[in-house]
Amino acid sequence: MKDFFKVTDLEKVLEYVSLFQTVETEQISLQETPGRILAENIISDIDLPGFSRSTMDGFAVRASSTFGASEENPAYLSVVGSIAMGESPSFSVNQGEAAKISTGGMLPKGADSIIMIEHTETLDEKTIEAYKSVAPGQHMIEKGEDFTKGNIILSAGQKIRPQETGLLAAFGKERVSVFKKPVISIISTGDEIVPVSSIPGPGQIRDINTYTLSGQIKEAGCIPLHLGIVKDDFTTLFEKCSEALDASDMVLISGGSSVGVRDFTIEVLSALPDSDIIVHGISISPGKPTILSRSGRKPLWGLPGHVVSAMIVFAAVVRPFIEKISGLSALHRSRLTLPALLSRNIASAQGRTDYIRVRLIKKEGVLWAEPVLGKSGLINTMVKADGLIEIGQHTEGLEKGTEVRVFPL
Amino acid sequence: MKDFFKVTDLEKVLEYVSLFQTVETEQISLQETPGRILAENIISDIDLPGFSRSTMDGFAVRASSTFGASEENPAYLSVVGSIAMGESPSFSVNQGEAAKISTGGMLPKGADSIIMIEHTETLDEKTIEAYKSVAPGQHMIEKGEDFTKGNIILSAGQKIRPQETGLLAAFGKERVSVFKKPVISIISTGDEIVPVSSIPGPGQIRDINTYTLSGQIKEAGCIPLHLGIVKDDFTTLFEKCSEALDASDMVLISGGSSVGVRDFTIEVLSALPDSDIIVHGISISPGKPTILSRSGRKPLWGLPGHVVSAMIVFAAVVRPFIEKISGLSALHRSRLTLPALLSRNIASAQGRTDYIRVRLIKKEGVLWAEPVLGKSGLINTMVKADGLIEIGQHTEGLEKGTEVRVFPL
Repeated sequence: MKDFFKVTDLEKVLEYVSLFQTVETEQISLQETPGRILAENIISDIDLPGFSRSTMDGFAVRASSTFGASEENPAYLSVVGSIAMGESPSFSVNQGEAAKISTGGMLPKGADSIIMIEHTETLDEKTIEAYKSVAPGQHMIEKGEDFTKGNIILSAGQKIRPQETGLLAAFGKERVSVFKKPVISIISTGDEIVPVSSIPGPGQIRDINTYTLSGQIKEAGCIPLHLGIVKDDFTTLFEKCSEALDASDMVLISGGSSVGVRDFTIEVLSALPDSDIIVHGISISPGKPTILSRSGRKPLWGLPGHVVSAMIVFAAVVRPFIEKISGLSALHRSRLTLPALLSRNIASAQGRTDYIRVRLIKKEGVLWAEPVLGKSGLINTMVKADGLIEIGQHTEGLEKGTEVRVFPL
Repeated sequence: MKDFFKVTDLEKVLEYVSLFQTVETEQISLQETPGRILAENIISDIDLPGFSRSTMDGFAVRASSTFGASEENPAYLSVVGSIAMGESPSFSVNQGEAAKISTGGMLPKGADSIIMIEHTETLDEKTIEAYKSVAPGQHMIEKGEDFTKGNIILSAGQKIRPQETGLLAAFGKERVSVFKKPVISIISTGDEIVPVSSIPGPGQIRDINTYTLSGQIKEAGCIPLHLGIVKDDFTTLFEKCSEALDASDMVLISGGSSVGVRDFTIEVLSALPDSDIIVHGISISPGKPTILSRSGRKPLWGLPGHVVSAMIVFAAVVRPFIEKISGLSALHRSRLTLPALLSRNIASAQGRTDYIRVRLIKKEGVLWAEPVLGKSGLINTMVKADGLIEIGQHTEGLEKGTEVRVFPL
């Protein structure tokens, strides 16, 4: 038996992430920031809020004016004014005084708390009764309580969620520096592959991988560039790869890594400027015949032709490289997984990392991961699957009932 | 004490989802489908694959020709041809014969299995030795094994993931009917709110809610429409709401639901054509002063002005309405939550649903949900939070160590 692949361990493959360059940065408008990766540290240049403000509708008072107040024994307070929203009150509040205020209003000088309108009774234009005592600082936000001036409040390399966009708004950042969305080229190879618009003849099949990979690229926050189908031919593939390198930050070649066409894919990748074949087979299943090469500081991948294998290699191996290239800092590269119990025994060969497609099924409050078995050429298995589980290379298999971590698909 | 809000239970509020209309459909290109909601059933109009194909590089054989073959006792097979990729072989394979085939190649007549190239030795141009026996059907995919002709393979109302896009490609669906992305208007109200481009004066604060809500709308797969800041004024708000109803499928009014400006927000909502105030306070915290109204079959929301409250109401209450309007079928409205252990006791009032912001912290392999305490006017609490936990209205509180479900933020 021949060893066709000198495989590299997955762990070792993932170390090569450091070889590749992060994309450049660009300035975008605040509104476009959700989902993007921040490329600058953001410093608070003002206190937030810039003034002490009420969080309730009621009256601004000195807390000490209400001490001991109760339904039986209310405190009588003189109303000295009403605070207009968005304005700085011109008067102050002294002991025994109150000023009408709405949620978000600015506290007048002298006031240190708010008594809620529900806890007062208006006696006349100038007098209220307060039925409750309030503590200093109650029902208000102090100047600078949210953020104080002069601190790093967001860091380069973090992903901007809606709340971070809100924070940028609070500090008036109308334009923000973010990492560009990486552009990723997809080249589909194989003499049997025909475009989606064609009716496949005998022996032919429509190009599926361009579309599954394109969807995965979008989900990863990048821009897919479809370069179409290349027949198994050195010159055409070389030209397409050169075009892809010019136009994008990473290149995916699908279908060119089975033994048949593998040799000339390797030849093409080796012929590119400043190139190097880094990985030539990975100890994972499915996905063993995967190639990683570089040209300059850009990665090129030879992905397996089987649709399931290509999708799994993308999710498990390519994606960490995309995160690096995207500018996401290592600190923020955590990945969400769901715990579930395995519904049946699963065998696995030692020395390789296995990825098992699973469906998630809830029975009596317990989440079960049910393996979806089937060949890696069958897309129906991915359509049925909700996620993947990883079985490490030092594990021989997992027993029914084992707790596993499911990566959602 | 006055009861300012006649609150509705959350469960009851969510039942009103059925009042609102789903958006219209549109035809989009295959490439644009990932993340969209399918609006038609997809039927398989061909077998997939359309022919029996090899999943390995090797030789197409009749399995019976290899029975009993081993390293010691190989089977000798006559090579009768080589199968070109993408073509229908013109010859057949009989007992004792083999045809060279690559991964994805079409099986010739007579062949029922593939022997891997690794398990053969080429003796001369016309003869190979096979060192292993194969079973019928091995290392191949049969015609129609992935999908057989004439079945519903995808259903209207399901979300299209990359694998579903791949499936649409396999069946040649160049254009697909999907639900339009709902357009959701955001109106920010309050005399104290200034645009992000302004430097806030005393008593003023920049418009944060437009941007947090806009980000949440995008995350939910919809298109945000920023209608700017409206001063607390009936006529302007009425005109903005009319404009919003014309231009969008749902309207969010932020900041108009505190007691102060609530009355005229209600007045405006009631003055819109064919309108109805449906909910006037919800038994949740934060987010109690939330208004839901309708004009025709479009919902309008009066959201609390506090940034955290508005975000939480969006995540917990508005989002299910968006899913309905988006065309996502009830079957597909599951929501991902992570189990974690609560790191400290949390009190909660009975009779209302509480939402607690939490950080997720992994300690010795255990995921802890650590409450982020703080006022609902402080955006820093949302920036620190990784998710939310919900404490049901019939629960008085949760003890440290309780397993909770975290909704990621």
